Order: sequence, then structure tokens, then C-alpha cells
Amino acid sequence: MLAEIITIGDEILIGQIIDSNSAWMAQQLNAIGVRIKQISSVSDDRGHIFSALKEASGRADLILITGGLGPTKDDITKTTLAEYFGVGMKRDQQTLDNVANIFERYNRPLLEVNIRQADVPENCEVLFNKNGTAPGMWFQVDGKVFVSMPGVPFEMMYLMEDLVIPKLKETFDLPKIIHQTILTAGEGESFLAERIADIEDQLPPEIKLAYLPKLGVVRLRLSAYGEDENQLKKALAIQTKKITKRLGDTIVATEDIPLEKAILLLMSKNKQTLSLAESCTGGYLAHLFTSLPGASSVFLGGAVSYSYEMKERMLGVNPDTLWETGAVSEETVREMAEGALRTFSSDYAVAVTGIAGPDGGTPEKPVGTVWIAVANQEKTLAKRYVFGNKRIQNIERTATRAMIDLLQLLRESK
Amino acid sequence: MLAEIITIGDEILIGQIIDSNSAWMAQQLNAIGVRIKQISSVSDDRGHIFSALKEASGRADLILITGGLGPTKDDITKTTLAEYFGVGMKRDQQTLDNVANIFERYNRPLLEVNIRQADVPENCEVLFNKNGTAPGMWFQVDGKVFVSMPGVPFEMMYLMEDLVIPKLKETFDLPKIIHQTILTAGEGESFLAERIADIEDQLPPEIKLAYLPKLGVVRLRLSAYGEDENQLKKALAIQTKKITKRLGDTIVATEDIPLEKAILLLMSKNKQTLSLAESCTGGYLAHLFTSLPGASSVFLGGAVSYSYEMKERMLGVNPDTLWETGAVSEETVREMAEGALRTFSSDYAVAVTGIAGPDGGTPEKPVGTVWIAVANQEKTLAKRYVFGNKRIQNIERTATRAMIDLLQLLRESK
Repeated sequence: MLAEIITIGDEILIGQIIDSNSAWMAQQLNAIGVRIKQISSVSDDRGHIFSALKEASGRADLILITGGLGPTKDDITKTTLAEYFGVGMKRDQQTLDNVANIFERYNRPLLEVNIRQADVPENCEVLFNKNGTAPGMWFQVDGKVFVSMPGVPFEMMYLMEDLVIPKLKETFDLPKIIHQTILTAGEGESFLAERIADIEDQLPPEIKLAYLPKLGVVRLRLSAYGEDENQLKKALAIQTKKITKRLGDTIVATEDIPLEKAILLLMSKNKQTLSLAESCTGGYLAHLFTSLPGASSVFLGGAVSYSYEMKERMLGVNPDTLWETGAVSEETVREMAEGALRTFSSDYAVAVTGIAGPDGGTPEKPVGTVWIAVANQEKTLAKRYVFGNKRIQNIERTATRAMIDLLQLLRESK
Repeated sequence: MLAEIITIGDEILIGQIIDSNSAWMAQQLNAIGVRIKQISSVSDDRGHIFSALKEASGRADLILITGGLGPTKDDITKTTLAEYFGVGMKRDQQTLDNVANIFERYNRPLLEVNIRQADVPENCEVLFNKNGTAPGMWFQVDGKVFVSMPGVPFEMMYLMEDLVIPKLKETFDLPKIIHQTILTAGEGESFLAERIADIEDQLPPEIKLAYLPKLGVVRLRLSAYGEDENQLKKALAIQTKKITKRLGDTIVATEDIPLEKAILLLMSKNKQTLSLAESCTGGYLAHLFTSLPGASSVFLGGAVSYSYEMKERMLGVNPDTLWETGAVSEETVREMAEGALRTFSSDYAVAVTGIAGPDGGTPEKPVGTVWIAVANQEKTLAKRYVFGNKRIQNIERTATRAMIDLLQLLRESK
């Protein structure tokens, strides 16, 4: 079955927020066999919402709409939907009680705009939103389903998980789509493609292969479309095995997981611990690891040392090293990694120091110059990289490269 | 002028990646007076790309396309564009030389798929991509402009900044759109709306107001549309003044900046320094601050202390406090903040400790329980919060709340 996602609101169109809701929804829908045909972001404009609904329902049977349900004047989704379906509005008592309760709990007066949050188009079934004041809405019209949800991510997520997904499974006889992701690191997209060209040419028609490169990591995604889940799984397993065998040295995982999760799983299995000494990545590596549930079984802690003094005090870097070779040098990064091993008593440590930019570069060490060291009790590997001149990208590329280097040391030390 | 953005590639539609390119492009285009009518993500499918191009060019004069330009078989944007415009392909020598150079530099054989990266539709002007192998393309057909760029963010960004934006300014006589954002913290959307209802009702017709709530912070965005930039600026300034005067106690900044930047600017102006002691946010707060250029003038460093031992060793938290009150307690968070002040010799410190989840909760301290302390030499303020049970959201909400608490202390200490 095909679905489309429409997000309503000027904030995406002027670039003030990134549409992360749609990616999350797409993942959830894919998992139950719904393919997304298109994702569209349109403005808080009646005519534009109308045409987006019309186009989407011409291509898909399920239309999921987020946003534009707030209490303020720029939120017009509800009235536009009522007009689109040619119906009036009704007041939903459960939603009204919920709104009243929320305001009472926070000791706030209930305003007219808040009461109006309980008004919904007559032809909808209300999807009760226990996490906020704006209700979800389910419309079934001429064999098509339209679902409207708030744009606040956690409200949308709960509604999807608790109500929308179960209801979709009941309503539609869903086909199957299965994805198998192979995570590789260290080789470019075109080399991987060349190495498996014959396998790709012989893929059965129900299986599609896509390459998803990102910062030194390439994901190979095999997608199988059909009716028989077992048959699809078997077909995917055969192709996955062929590809992983061929690309053995580059394979990090055969799951769709981020690099940090592959590392966490590997180290957790081997009962190894990790610590971090971050200068130019400024806590980003620590954040990546600690975003994962269960991080604490591997990750002991990190030092974000932005100054010379902190590199000395928290990591025991020799002041002479710092003054003689500078904060961005092989000697310093080695001492940072070895210092982290000592400070945190961890089995492995990663240290990064560099010039993220936009300022701080010199002719010898331009912006984007980064030293990365990975260490365990046996050895310390240090490498120099030169990335670009965009701060955020330098932070992200450094973090990815540091994880690839750590994976290499983990493999060598097996 | 109206523009549309089309991203091509299944990876967005299956939720494997979040479309952050479009938001960035929208910001850049808005700044030069181009309004985005719609953002669409479509699949690597010839027919679908065709209809997306047709629909978009029916609504807008400028169509920006990203993605689908890689060397592998799933990348069909170029051939589809050639077909759409009814032209053949040509080989671009500069692009071919560039591809050959890149492969020579990395000592890699030049494959046929890489050579084909230099093939472009006959009717396009090549936008030379100095950061990658896939060229940008500019098409001018029947008064409309189509631009095709790679989906790799930093390649797209350089092409936009260096070539596309300057060329758009030359090609079109652009009208003006100006946005003015007012950043508020501590009050909900509907209360802000109620407090300025009369101002909103009397807004001149060329000015639109939108509320953008996110995790305890609400952005009020005033947008002015017209031809005369000075007149628009004046009109915006009048309304901004009215609103900020009315909402004085909630105003953080009158720029579209994140909370961390507002803090950095304020502390930098006052020559104050900051350190962090993070447990449950795991480096996320440090990452937010260090993502900003110039962070080092305020931010001295941070300790990510995931274990009892590290809270003692790096921050000097009393072991008795930890064992008697636990890691998530008022006493511990106070000692963490005061320890960070000492360890980093900073003027201000923020400490957070909590249970991010999904595991680790108890009946007394459920998942989502967080203690936040903000401290300077005069005082330490500690508060308890209970958020939800989603790890990532707990991390983000804790970070936002910690910054709001820090702002409060900064204001009180003026």
C-alpha cells in the first residue's frame, strides 16, 4: 500500500526547523509494509493544503498529515480539513476534558483558544492525545484514510505508536516490505559497487539495492517487496550473505544502525570499556554514544578539554608537550588518549584535537586539521586528517573518522 | 519569487535519513527573497520524478533538485532530467578532469561508472563541483530555472553558496522577505498569544506572525513581504518593539538563534566563563555550546561523568553524598555543579544528573527524573524535573531546561 506524508507549517519552508517527523513516520510505516510515495511540506495556506491533499490522495490510499493544530491563528489544518471534506465542526468532550485537566494541573486559566482545541471536523474519529492538547483525527473517505496529528514530535510519536499503527493494521490488508541494511566503512560507494557489480546484476526482480553514502560510511540497503514474508526474508538473506562475503573487510554490521551502536554492541559483547578525550568535537562523540540505551555498560566517561589547562589537569598531558608541539599535534593527541585510559581506567580511549574553525587556523595547521588517536593498553594509533572549513561538518567528520579508527584498533586487537 | 525544492532518493522515503538539506536551502533562499512554496521528497523513479517536476514548475519559477547523482545504478536524476527536457547527454570535460584528478590523488583506478559522472543533459550549464565528483546543473527553460545538485550536504552547500545563490541574484529581480524572530522561554504558546492578542489583531497586512514552540521555548516569527526593504524593516521593528515590551520577562533574544547561542553571546559580552558537569545529557550540552564558532571564549570544558567514580574523581563529589542520596539527587547535583566551578575555575557551572531511560528507573525515581543545578560563586540553584520515558527526548528536554535555568541565574546575578 502507498502512503504520503504532508507536513503543514511555514517553519519548515523557511528552514527554521528540520522535518525529522517524516523520517520517523516513514520508518514506522515501512515496518508494517506501507511504502511512502512522497513526503511534502506545504505552507499554512488553505488553497495550498487543498491541492496537496488532492494530489496526495490521487497517488496514495493513506495520507498522514502533521502540524498546524496549535491554538494560535496561524494553525488552520482543522478548519481546512473540514472544508476539504465538506463538513462542519463538532466539539469533542474527551478532548475538552483533557485540555481542562491539563490547564487545571498547571494552574492556568482555560482560554477560549484552548477550548477550541477540542473542536474537530464532524466526519472524523478522534484519536485521543494523552500527551498534549491537540487531538489526532482519523478520516475514512471513499476508501482512503486521512490521519491528522500534531507536529510536536513526541505527541505525534505516541499517537502513531499507540493508535495509528494498530488501526492501520486493522483497516488494511498490508503487503510486506523488508529492508536489510549492510553497514560498511572505509571504502567509497563506486568501489563497493564495482566489487559487487555481478551480484547486483543478478538480483532477483523483487529485490532492489541502494547505496547510501555518508561521511566515510556507506550503507547498502536491500529492499524486498512482495506478499510472503518468509520468502522475502529468505531471498534477502541469500543476497546479504553474497554481499557480505564479497565485501568482508569493509563490513561493520548487517543492521541499520549507526556506527556508534555497532561499536557499542561489539565492545559490550567483549566486555570492554571506553573513555573519550575530546577537544574539537566538544562532546559530540560522547553525545553519540550516550544517546544509545545501555551506553553505560561500555562508556565510562569523557573529558571535554577546550583549554591547555584542562588537557593537563583532566588528562595529564605534559605541559611541555603542549607548549612545544601545540594542542593540535601527534604528541598531544597521543598523550590525551593515554591520559584518558588512565583517568577513566578504561580498556580503550579515543582522543581528538583539531581546529574546527571558522577561526584558529594557521598556514601550517589550516582550519580542518585534526589529529585522532585511539588507544588501548598495548598500543596507541594516531593519524592526521585535513577536513574542510565548515565547523559543524568538521565536528561530524572527525567523530565518524574517530569511530572508524577505533573499529580498526578493535579488530586488530581481537 | 516562488521556489520549490525536490529531493530525490528512497533513503528519505524509508526514513533512513532526515532531510536536513531542504531546511538549509530554504534558509539561504529566504535570505535573498525567494519563498519556498513546497518541499517534496520523491523516489528514484522516472515517472514520479517527472510528475514532481511538472507539478513544481506549475507552482514555482525556480525548482531546486538534490540527490540521485551518484555513480550507482539507483541514481537516475540526470537521465530523467534529459528525458524531461527532451535532450540528449553530453560529456563535460572540466568535470571529467576533476573526477580523474580526484581518483589519481587517492590512487584509485578510474572506473566507467565514475567517467559517466561527467555526462550531463545537453541543455544544461554545468555548475562545477570542486568538492566531489557529481556536477551541479543549471537549466533555464521557458523562463523557469531548474537546478540539480548532489545530495551530499557539504557538496550541495558549497554549490549553493558559491554558484547558485549569486546566479539567482543575477537572473531574477528578487522581491524582499524579511523575518524577525523573537525567542522566548518559560511561557507556553497560548499564554504568549493571549498576552499579545491585541497586537496580533492590529498587525499590518504585509506582516504575518507565527508561533514556533519547541521544548519549553517558543519562537515568535514576524515575516514581512514586499518590495521596499527599508519600509519592511521599519514596519517589523515597530511590531517587534511592541511585542518585546509586552513580553519582557520571557524574552531571551530578538534574533533567530538557539538558546545556547543567546547564552554564549550574553556571557561573552559579560566576560563570563562556563563549565559543565553532565551525567544524563552525556555531552549533549557541551556539544550544543561547542557547535558555535567562538565557543572557546566562554566555554572552558566539561566532564561527562557516567559513573560514581568519575563524579568523585573529576568533580570532587563526596562519596558519602553519592552513596547516601544516590547519583540522581539534589545533594549530588549541587556538589557536581560546585565541583565543576572548582575543577574548571569557571564563573558559572551547569550540572545535570538524571535517568534518561529506557532502563534505570525506580518507583521513587522513575525514568525521566532529572536534577539540574546552576551555580556561580554566590549561589547554587537546584531543581528537580520529571520528563517522559524517551531517552533522546529526555536528553534534549534536560539540556533545554538547564539552559533556561542558567539564563535565570545569569539574570538574577546581573
